[in-house]
Amino acid sequence: MLRLLSRLAPLLLAATARAQAPAAAAAAPADLVVTNARIYTVDGSRPLAAAMAIRGGRVQFVGDARGALALKGNATRVLDLGGRAVIPGMVDAHGHLSGLGLGLRNVDLVGTTSYDSVIARVAARARTTPKGQWIVGRGWDQNDWGDTRFPTHEALSRAVPDHPVYLERVDGHAGLVNAAGMRAANITRETKDPEGGRLERTSDGTPTGVFVDRAQGLVERAIPNATREQLRDALRAATRELHRYGLVGVHSAGESRSTIELMEEMAQKGELDLRANVMISDDSAALVHYFARGPRRALHDGRLWVSSVKLYADGALGSRGAALLEPYADDPNNNGLLVSAPAHIQEVAVRALRAGFQVNTHAIGDRGNRLVLDAYETALRQVPVADHRFRVEHAQILHHEDVPRFAALGVIPSMQASHQTSDMYWAGNRLGTGRLLGAYAWRALLDAGSIVPNGSDFPVELVNPLISFHASVSRQDARNWPIGGWYPEQRMTRDEALKSMTLWPAFAAFQEQELGSLAPGKRADFVVLDRDIMRVPAEEILGTRVLATYFGGKAVYEATP
Amino acid sequence: MLRLLSRLAPLLLAATARAQAPAAAAAAPADLVVTNARIYTVDGSRPLAAAMAIRGGRVQFVGDARGALALKGNATRVLDLGGRAVIPGMVDAHGHLSGLGLGLRNVDLVGTTSYDSVIARVAARARTTPKGQWIVGRGWDQNDWGDTRFPTHEALSRAVPDHPVYLERVDGHAGLVNAAGMRAANITRETKDPEGGRLERTSDGTPTGVFVDRAQGLVERAIPNATREQLRDALRAATRELHRYGLVGVHSAGESRSTIELMEEMAQKGELDLRANVMISDDSAALVHYFARGPRRALHDGRLWVSSVKLYADGALGSRGAALLEPYADDPNNNGLLVSAPAHIQEVAVRALRAGFQVNTHAIGDRGNRLVLDAYETALRQVPVADHRFRVEHAQILHHEDVPRFAALGVIPSMQASHQTSDMYWAGNRLGTGRLLGAYAWRALLDAGSIVPNGSDFPVELVNPLISFHASVSRQDARNWPIGGWYPEQRMTRDEALKSMTLWPAFAAFQEQELGSLAPGKRADFVVLDRDIMRVPAEEILGTRVLATYFGGKAVYEATP
Repeated sequence: MLRLLSRLAPLLLAATARAQAPAAAAAAPADLVVTNARIYTVDGSRPLAAAMAIRGGRVQFVGDARGALALKGNATRVLDLGGRAVIPGMVDAHGHLSGLGLGLRNVDLVGTTSYDSVIARVAARARTTPKGQWIVGRGWDQNDWGDTRFPTHEALSRAVPDHPVYLERVDGHAGLVNAAGMRAANITRETKDPEGGRLERTSDGTPTGVFVDRAQGLVERAIPNATREQLRDALRAATRELHRYGLVGVHSAGESRSTIELMEEMAQKGELDLRANVMISDDSAALVHYFARGPRRALHDGRLWVSSVKLYADGALGSRGAALLEPYADDPNNNGLLVSAPAHIQEVAVRALRAGFQVNTHAIGDRGNRLVLDAYETALRQVPVADHRFRVEHAQILHHEDVPRFAALGVIPSMQASHQTSDMYWAGNRLGTGRLLGAYAWRALLDAGSIVPNGSDFPVELVNPLISFHASVSRQDARNWPIGGWYPEQRMTRDEALKSMTLWPAFAAFQEQELGSLAPGKRADFVVLDRDIMRVPAEEILGTRVLATYFGGKAVYEATP
Repeated sequence: MLRLLSRLAPLLLAATARAQAPAAAAAAPADLVVTNARIYTVDGSRPLAAAMAIRGGRVQFVGDARGALALKGNATRVLDLGGRAVIPGMVDAHGHLSGLGLGLRNVDLVGTTSYDSVIARVAARARTTPKGQWIVGRGWDQNDWGDTRFPTHEALSRAVPDHPVYLERVDGHAGLVNAAGMRAANITRETKDPEGGRLERTSDGTPTGVFVDRAQGLVERAIPNATREQLRDALRAATRELHRYGLVGVHSAGESRSTIELMEEMAQKGELDLRANVMISDDSAALVHYFARGPRRALHDGRLWVSSVKLYADGALGSRGAALLEPYADDPNNNGLLVSAPAHIQEVAVRALRAGFQVNTHAIGDRGNRLVLDAYETALRQVPVADHRFRVEHAQILHHEDVPRFAALGVIPSMQASHQTSDMYWAGNRLGTGRLLGAYAWRALLDAGSIVPNGSDFPVELVNPLISFHASVSRQDARNWPIGGWYPEQRMTRDEALKSMTLWPAFAAFQEQELGSLAPGKRADFVVLDRDIMRVPAEEILGTRVLATYFGGKAVYEATP
C-alpha cells in the first residue's frame, strides 16, 4: 500500500492542483457572514442553522459558523448575533401600503384623554404645515374625556384658524371639522343631512362641526387627494414602518395605476426596499392596461410584482355587509350585500387567466366565499390554467362544504389571523354559534390541503405581523384571552404559522423562487428577534422586539440599543 | 364606465391575443397526470396536494386536479389513485447495494425447520447452477430444528456432490461446508484451527463441515468473487428489491472502483433506474483516481453521484468493536477498537476537501464519533470549505458534549433508526443506562440544529424503509414493543421522519436540487402507498404496502393486485 502511494504521489499532487480550481471558484468571498444565531430557515432541507453567508444580496450559504466563515474575505463583515433567533424577512399577504403610508401622515389622536390634548396635537401639526393645507387626524373618543358629550368646533377653530381640519373618531363613524374645514367644504346652516348621515347642530341649526356616518362624505370629498410627492413620502414612511416590524414585503391589496407607476419608478431608482406585490384595483382601464402588458414579476432587482388583480365580492362582518347564506343572527332580515356581481368576478377571472394574471377577491361571508369559488370554477373551466394561484382574500366565514373546495380548485385562502382576535368578541352575535365552526378556520383549510398565507390587513389592524403569528398559534388576543383560545381546534403549529408569514405569502404571489425562506440563491432578507418565537411560551410572543431587519443583505432597520 | 369599456374593446382583444402566447407555451402537455391522491410533497411551499402533472420525467405541476388536468394533452396518461397517499420516492442514506444484490443470489435459509429442508433448498438451486460453481446460502439455525446439535456435512454432500457449498449460520458466526467445498478450499484433517476460529471435528480429527468464527475465512477466501456479469445481475436484483419497498435511491456505503465503473456503464445505458450515490471505498488507488477526476453528480440523467468517500473509524456495538470513551459495561477491560487511525481520517478528509469530495465515516461508539469530529475539525481548519456536508455514518452512541458539535461543524449524522429497535434489547448491557441517553439520539441532534438522514444499512437490516420510519416516530419494534417506546423523548415527528427518508438523504448527498420532494422541476420519483403513513395509528405503519414506485415518471414497480 505504501509503495503504491509513493508511486502515485506525483499524480496525486497534480490531481489536487487541478481539483482546487473549482473549489476556489465556489468560494467567492461573502459580503456578510452571520454567526452565533438560531436561524429558522423555513427550508426543509436544513430547518435550523447557526450561521449564513451573504453575497450580492443573496444567501450564499446556510449552515454552521465554520462553513460560513470559510467564505470570509478581507472585506467581509461578520455579524455575531449572540445566539439570537433569526427568521426570514416576513411578508404580509394582505395590507394596504399606500393606505398605511397616507394614514401615517395623519395626526394620531388615539389615547387622547381630553379635547384640549386633541387640539394641542393638531395645533402642533399646523405649525409645520403650509397655511390652507388640510390637516387630517384620527382616533379621538370623547368617552375617554372628562366631558363625554360630542365636542363642538369652536375651541379647535380658535386654536387652528388657518388650516382646514378633519378629525375622524376612533370608530370611523363620525368626524370633527373646524371652521376653515367647513368653509372649504361649503358647509353652512343650509346644508341638509344626507340619507344615512347627520350633522350635529345647535338649537338654531348651525352645524357644531361633528359629522356622523354618511355626512362625513360631505367633508371628505373636499379634501384633495395626496400629491405625487405626498404619496412618495407616504410610501417611504410605510416602508419604514414595515421594516420596524420585520416585514420585507407586502401584498398591497388594491392599488391604483398611478400608485403602481410611482412604485415602479421608486423601485427602479432603488428607493423602495420592499418585495412589493401589488394587486391592481378593479378599475377597468387599469385592467386593460396591465392585462395587455402581461404579468411582471421580480421587477427592479426583486422589488415589485405586478401580476394580480384585487376584486370585491361582499362587505365586512362588523357592519353586517358580509354576504351570508343565512341571515345575520342579530339582524334576521339581512343576508349582507354583494359589492360586485358574480358575473363580473367571473368575467375578470377569464380575462386574467388569458393574460396570465392572478385574481384575488375579497370575500368575508360564507355566501361571498361560495360565490367567488363558483365564479373561479366557471372561469377555470372556460380557460383551464394549471398554476393560477387564484386567491380569496379574508375567507373568514366558510360553509363546511366549501372548505375542501379551496384545495380542490387550487384557490388560496389568504387570511388575517389578527381579524379573528379582533372580531371574536362579537362574531358570535352576528353568526350564532353554529357558523363559528367555519369562522377563521385555518386548521380545517390546512388539513384539507390548502396553504394559508397570513397577514394583518394594515392599517385596518396594526402592522406588527407577530400579532397574527400569535393569534394563529393561540387563538388568543394580546392579553392572552380567552384561556385555552377561541375555538382552539383551529390553531396552527408554530412551524405552520412561521410559514404563513414567510414562504406561503411568497408562494401566493409567485415569489417562492426569490424569497420566503433562507436558502442558497434566495434573497438575503431576514429578521433578528430579541427572543425565540418558536420556543418561548405563547403568552410571551407578543413581547418580542425586532432588533434588525435585513433586505437583500443590508440592514434597513436596526433597533436603538 | 361602460362607454370607456366599449372604447377600449379592440385594444382589449389585441391584448388578450398577445397575452395568450406565454400561457400556451407554459402549458406543454403532461406525459402523466396523477389525480385523486393525498400527496405529501415534502415541499414547504405546498405541503399537501391532490394532484400533479409530470413531463419529461420531472414534476411539471403540483396542486389540484383541475390544475393538473389543465395540462392534459391527447397522449397524456391519467392515473386516478382513489385517494391513496403518495410520498416522494424514498432514499436510503446508508445501504450496501452490491452487498444486497449479491446476497439476494444466495440461497435463503432463514426460517428452515430441519436440516432436510436446508438440503432441499440447496439441491433445488444446484439444479439451475453449472456444476463446479459455488452455491452460497445463509440463515440456518439448528436451534429451530428437531435435533439442535450442529449438523455435519455428509447428508448435504450426498445430495449436492458436484457443487461446492457454503452455508452461513443465521448469526454469521459459523458456516457449513460440503465435501466439494472443503476440497475446493483444500481443507483436510491436517488443517489447523486458526486463531479465533475452530473447525468442528469427529473424534479422529476429521472436519465435520462446520467452521466457527475466524475458521470461516479458510473457506470464504476460496469462493471466487462475483464475475462482472454476476455483479450486473446482482445490481439489477438489488434495484428491483429497492423499488418493491418504495426506494428510488440509496447511498451505497463503500463500493469498489470496479463496481462503480459497472454502475456507471449501467447508468449510461439506462439500465440502472436508481438515484445511486456511491461512497467510494477507502482504497488508496481508487481515491487517487476519483479525487483526480473530481466530484460527479447527477450523471446519466440523474442516475449516479460519485462524490463521496466511505471511511471507517471503529467497529460495531454488538461485537464490542465500537470505540467507547469508557469501557464496555459488560466487558470492563474493553474500550472497543479503532479500525482506522484518526490521522488517516484527517489526511483523507484534507484531500477530499481539496478535491471537492464528501467524507462519510463509520462511527458507532462515543469515542469513535468524537475522534471523527476531531479529525474533521482539524481538516476543516486546514482547508476551510463552506458546504462540505461531511457525514458520520451511524453516529449511534454520542457523548452529550458532542451532540451540538455536529451542527457546529456542519457534520451530518446519517443514522439508521432500524438499528435502534434491533439493538435496544442488549444495548443497555453493553453501555449501562447512563450512556443510553446519548444512544440513537436523533431528537437531541435535530434540536441542536442537525438534519438526520435515515437509512437501513441493508442487508444488515431489512430493506423496507418504513421500518426505520416507524422506529423513528415510535422507538418501538415491529411488535410495537416497548409500550410507549424506548427512550421515547428521542422520537421524531412524522413530518421529520418523512423528511429523513426523502429530503434529508437528498441534501446529505448534494441531491436536493433533483430529488427529495415533489416540486416543479424535480425528478418525478414517487411512491403510492395502500395507507396514509402520516395519519394511521403508529402501530399500523408497518402493515403498509407499496402499491407502486415511480422513477422519473415511470412505474418501476407495481404491486400485483
